[in-house]
Amino acid sequence: MDRREFFKQSAFGAAAAGLALSGLGSLQGCRPSSGSDYAPYSMKPARGGEGALRLSFEPYELELRHTFTVSGNSRKSTPGVQVRLDYEGFTGYGEASMPPYLGQSVQSVCSFLERIDLSSFTDPFLMDDILDYIDSLSEGDTAAKAAVDIALHDLVGKMLASPWYRIWGLNPSKAPLTTFTIGIDTPEIVKQKTLECASQFRILKIKVGTPSDWEMIRAIREVTSLPLAVDANQGWKDCRMALDEIFWLKEQGVVMVEQPMGKDRPDENAWITERSPLPIFADEAVQRLRDIPSVKGAYHGINIKLMKCTGMREAWKMLNYARAEGMKVMIGCMTETSCAVSAAAQLSPAVDFADLDGNLLISNDLFSGVTVQDGRLCLGEGSGIGVTPL
Amino acid sequence: MDRREFFKQSAFGAAAAGLALSGLGSLQGCRPSSGSDYAPYSMKPARGGEGALRLSFEPYELELRHTFTVSGNSRKSTPGVQVRLDYEGFTGYGEASMPPYLGQSVQSVCSFLERIDLSSFTDPFLMDDILDYIDSLSEGDTAAKAAVDIALHDLVGKMLASPWYRIWGLNPSKAPLTTFTIGIDTPEIVKQKTLECASQFRILKIKVGTPSDWEMIRAIREVTSLPLAVDANQGWKDCRMALDEIFWLKEQGVVMVEQPMGKDRPDENAWITERSPLPIFADEAVQRLRDIPSVKGAYHGINIKLMKCTGMREAWKMLNYARAEGMKVMIGCMTETSCAVSAAAQLSPAVDFADLDGNLLISNDLFSGVTVQDGRLCLGEGSGIGVTPL
Repeated sequence: MDRREFFKQSAFGAAAAGLALSGLGSLQGCRPSSGSDYAPYSMKPARGGEGALRLSFEPYELELRHTFTVSGNSRKSTPGVQVRLDYEGFTGYGEASMPPYLGQSVQSVCSFLERIDLSSFTDPFLMDDILDYIDSLSEGDTAAKAAVDIALHDLVGKMLASPWYRIWGLNPSKAPLTTFTIGIDTPEIVKQKTLECASQFRILKIKVGTPSDWEMIRAIREVTSLPLAVDANQGWKDCRMALDEIFWLKEQGVVMVEQPMGKDRPDENAWITERSPLPIFADEAVQRLRDIPSVKGAYHGINIKLMKCTGMREAWKMLNYARAEGMKVMIGCMTETSCAVSAAAQLSPAVDFADLDGNLLISNDLFSGVTVQDGRLCLGEGSGIGVTPL
Repeated sequence: MDRREFFKQSAFGAAAAGLALSGLGSLQGCRPSSGSDYAPYSMKPARGGEGALRLSFEPYELELRHTFTVSGNSRKSTPGVQVRLDYEGFTGYGEASMPPYLGQSVQSVCSFLERIDLSSFTDPFLMDDILDYIDSLSEGDTAAKAAVDIALHDLVGKMLASPWYRIWGLNPSKAPLTTFTIGIDTPEIVKQKTLECASQFRILKIKVGTPSDWEMIRAIREVTSLPLAVDANQGWKDCRMALDEIFWLKEQGVVMVEQPMGKDRPDENAWITERSPLPIFADEAVQRLRDIPSVKGAYHGINIKLMKCTGMREAWKMLNYARAEGMKVMIGCMTETSCAVSAAAQLSPAVDFADLDGNLLISNDLFSGVTVQDGRLCLGEGSGIGVTPL
């Protein structure tokens, strides 16, 4: 039995058998409750007997197909933690993904998940109670919270025998195109990466915010005329220069801009938004629902990511709140398996832009779920978040 | 077959047979599509063949147990329209209730419902598409829109085999007490009405806003010490006098105040809210989601009513929007059967106050649904909106 079996087996007992330790990343400080310090997962019976919610989790390092560079850092893999929630024969899958800039780690996520005691909850449909309890356990830990939230949504959706986009009343045929991200690199490598993906996508996303922006865009324009989204990741330092660049980017076929300047500079982002010929989205400036009021007026829209906002419940509230404020919405992701990406995709029929390529960037996916067909997100009929373990 | 059969029968054909006309209220201008001008309902096959959404409706006059007085008018009955939506053996029930001050009538509701063409919708789960289409048909007609929204929610909830409070993740044991409303009347009648209901409820609602407020409250306090909610229905004309009265009402055991002054006087309502020792709720000042931003700061909370806001979908969005703004929420109703009241009750575990007594005020209810036990709303396990035709 290899690690993938963790996701396929349906019974607690089988998973509790000791498994070989292999490539588990930093397990230090993550104390499995199943007896062996070396078990590659922790599986907690939340409550004895039938009808108990059983939460289990396992670190899982996501291997990147290409070294990934954004303004600030490069990486070849991303730590993650896979979660499952079992209840009366139903299994919900969830996932935490922790890019370094999020300030969460395998250790912090496992430590948080260890603290969760679901023994007082015998009905997974009491989602508000369960997720309020989990949110109350700490101030941060948004990725760990998202992992449980996703698993709970998957579980409840399966019990309702319906995907969440249907429960939310959304039309799957309105799922948008997804961007595919080209990292910052040399012009030659950028051109090569662009050529590799240009036939499968109908919009590309470019990481900008370094002095090589012009060079990058020109290199891409040598090989494709696809529309582009750009993400400055707070990388621009002068709002007038940023605005000048945005006008130039529009001429280059760019259709939207993410987080032009630092999140701590709302006035300068607002100055850009007032004058920009392209819609400006907040990413780093908005983590959760409570952050949206503070960015009203400073951006045209927000980028919702499950790992930032604690999961699907809050993402849905953020989407509806932003719409009520007349703001645009995009849905994004981290580097994730098809688990968290398919969870995010459930909301996608209601957004303006989707940036859900995280599962396409890794070489060791654990699930099948949402796919991309002719550049567009394709939501299947699978219940819950619509994933199947590979 | 009497009119109640309309709600029990499952097939289109049976209902299309001509029925005797009896006590139908103002059918003028409401043109049934079934051939006879005298048929007591209109039933439209939305699309031929299997899998079609069939919308049908029938005016139904709600008889009040007691003549009801609020500041401005008295009445003995309220016009309503019952709606049903059939799809593949499932039936969803909905209802429009049109108190005179809402500016809608049997004629306007039936005229609106006649315009609805569901033939392009073959999947009731595409709720956003369906309800966006219905909302796009006119600027107002909120009660007619709510009737269809409720029927669609009931239908979809039944197809998911779950009540909406479960789909929304709410804990039914958190359903609140409901107020029971005592209309404006002579002190003797007010005392008598209070005595009649005081044993079944744990909070009463008093309509104030007339010069007899003090007399009313004193009369009630002669016979009960229950907490009181008051609704001024825009009846107070001077904000300083209103605030003085609110301080006095607090001493009398009042716990909240609805719509102290006219909805067109936001500054005076805000002046009261800033100084009030009791929470102040907007009712007439907020109809729909789009109205909430304009009342932020002017009230502590909002009163959500399905007939004002077009139904459950928008009510849920309003609740979450108001929470995100740190506002309190109450859920109210019109004079309605247990159909619309049970629909509103689905949201009640998430509100601060419930005022869901509309079905208790009528003598000719058509459904069983939410009940009141020891003053508290009791949500059953029934799917959808949880109602059964009587």
